[in-house]
Amino acid sequence: MIIAVDAEGGDYAPHEVVKGAIKAAQEHEVEIALVGRRDILHVLAGKHLDKLGMTIVDANEVIGFHEHAVEAVTCKPQSSIVIGTNLVKEGSAAAFISAGNTGAVFYAAISILGRLNGIERPAIGTLLGLSSNGQTLFIDSGANTDCRPIHLVHFARLGNVYAREILGIASPRIGLLNNGAEPGKGNRLARESYDLLKQTDLNFIGNVEGHDFVRDRADVIVTDGFTGNIILKTIEGLGDNWLNSLTQVGQVFSKAYRLSRQALHRDMGIDSWAKKLDYKESGGATLLGVNGNIIIAHGRSQAKAIMNAIGMAKRTAEKELCQKIKEEQYEQANGDK
Amino acid sequence: MIIAVDAEGGDYAPHEVVKGAIKAAQEHEVEIALVGRRDILHVLAGKHLDKLGMTIVDANEVIGFHEHAVEAVTCKPQSSIVIGTNLVKEGSAAAFISAGNTGAVFYAAISILGRLNGIERPAIGTLLGLSSNGQTLFIDSGANTDCRPIHLVHFARLGNVYAREILGIASPRIGLLNNGAEPGKGNRLARESYDLLKQTDLNFIGNVEGHDFVRDRADVIVTDGFTGNIILKTIEGLGDNWLNSLTQVGQVFSKAYRLSRQALHRDMGIDSWAKKLDYKESGGATLLGVNGNIIIAHGRSQAKAIMNAIGMAKRTAEKELCQKIKEEQYEQANGDK
Repeated sequence: MIIAVDAEGGDYAPHEVVKGAIKAAQEHEVEIALVGRRDILHVLAGKHLDKLGMTIVDANEVIGFHEHAVEAVTCKPQSSIVIGTNLVKEGSAAAFISAGNTGAVFYAAISILGRLNGIERPAIGTLLGLSSNGQTLFIDSGANTDCRPIHLVHFARLGNVYAREILGIASPRIGLLNNGAEPGKGNRLARESYDLLKQTDLNFIGNVEGHDFVRDRADVIVTDGFTGNIILKTIEGLGDNWLNSLTQVGQVFSKAYRLSRQALHRDMGIDSWAKKLDYKESGGATLLGVNGNIIIAHGRSQAKAIMNAIGMAKRTAEKELCQKIKEEQYEQANGDK
Repeated sequence: MIIAVDAEGGDYAPHEVVKGAIKAAQEHEVEIALVGRRDILHVLAGKHLDKLGMTIVDANEVIGFHEHAVEAVTCKPQSSIVIGTNLVKEGSAAAFISAGNTGAVFYAAISILGRLNGIERPAIGTLLGLSSNGQTLFIDSGANTDCRPIHLVHFARLGNVYAREILGIASPRIGLLNNGAEPGKGNRLARESYDLLKQTDLNFIGNVEGHDFVRDRADVIVTDGFTGNIILKTIEGLGDNWLNSLTQVGQVFSKAYRLSRQALHRDMGIDSWAKKLDYKESGGATLLGVNGNIIIAHGRSQAKAIMNAIGMAKRTAEKELCQKIKEEQYEQANGDK
């Protein structure tokens, strides 16, 4: 199985991306196609190429973080994002992962791979591990800022397939993110989405609230991409802040009590918090509803995050998630819903 | 100065409310009017009444947490929330604080005190202390689920007066919560609000993102009440979770190294984190835009939180926040804006 990796995407590209790809090739038993500028990648990965079955696919344009997505994808056909997505389209790669400009990855996926039948708005699903008992897919965590109720129903369906196929949950609990638990709560979008979700055959458990992210209430939490993006960045900001504080406390303690940093981090639970909160540990988000496997890694991904994202890409491809999403029945938009 | 306190509001009423009120009377030099069932309050506060200049105002109905706000306020004229709000209306109290049903407190304030001239939608402003350098007023943190752009401009004005008068910031930095920093980002509400905010004389610094809650980027962060409520509860949920973990780690360490719990909490920064994250430490939120000083305390408030909320009520009344809000000029709604 070949996984295409955007070697030019993210704050630490290409060095950390290549390091992560090498690790993944060693640990996950996948063949990697590094997409980027051949000369540089040859220098960075050269000695590993043959041994690990890695290849380089030349892409001599780079799309920056602040470029306008549609314009960049249209005007830079030789960019790593466009070429990587095309590898999936042609069937040369089973999946593409990128830590680059999210908007550009999203637009390239939609325009090159296309939407799956019945899905108006592909969405980003992010796996959160904040509750003690399991993982929650949070969808849409940033792709669609203005949504209609039918879109949220589709997000719920996409999340349902994901939780069933990837997390192995027979009947995933679907919650609607809202500003109160009772039916009837919410802004217009949430209220109307609630009514539509009630009519589906999904295991819809009703509204969930902000504090439910840390409780084991739902396997899939559905919201619009505006709210989703803000929530995700809030969680990330608080997480960074806490980890910094914990690390500082750890330093004070390890000096005072002559403990090794490792033992201390373990005893203080820093490791388990880091796993929960640190984007460096995260495997990235999955773009759901397009005709191909696309994984969006965090822009600040270092080697470990890239390796984890490649692992997630492999799992997604092995489970034939895309095919399973195709087989689902989607509600049709009805009037202005 | 008399502060009216809803002795029947919140999970720990009336015991903790009365304890908090007694502490506040001792520490903040305010006269407290306890609003609730006279017999019970007499038993709880009896010996302190004369000494601390506390009084009891009889209210023999209680509005529960799950009651419908409008119905409850209309059908229970003898409830502590209605009677407490009336004390402010008549001028018998300088402010009213309640940890009871937020919707009911909000509706009682609007229907009894009325909106201030020019403000279509009063809003809830919550003071967050997540950044290391200061406090941020987060508005609207839950009152208005469906908003139009003009409402967000009014929230910005309300927050501006609050930050100037209560936080003492000459020219408060106003940020719009959005899913990206660049102009043009956001859902329709955010984009149109951005354009309107740009035209004001406020110190509008543009869009802020979820991770900016922990950075010292803005003194006032403006959003609609749907997003605001979800964000606030997410922060609260993570905070609870985090404090629990820290406390557990603290227990392990204090046993292992025979440290006093106090010293350990101080060394590990648990105290300062608790101050940032714990609703028990928080002084509650302020209802801005109604004709009177109303403080909404957290439903789970215990004595300390009630005491702090009373302190906040006193400060708000002393600074004549309501009068200052009246003097501000408000943009008029224009067409469907």
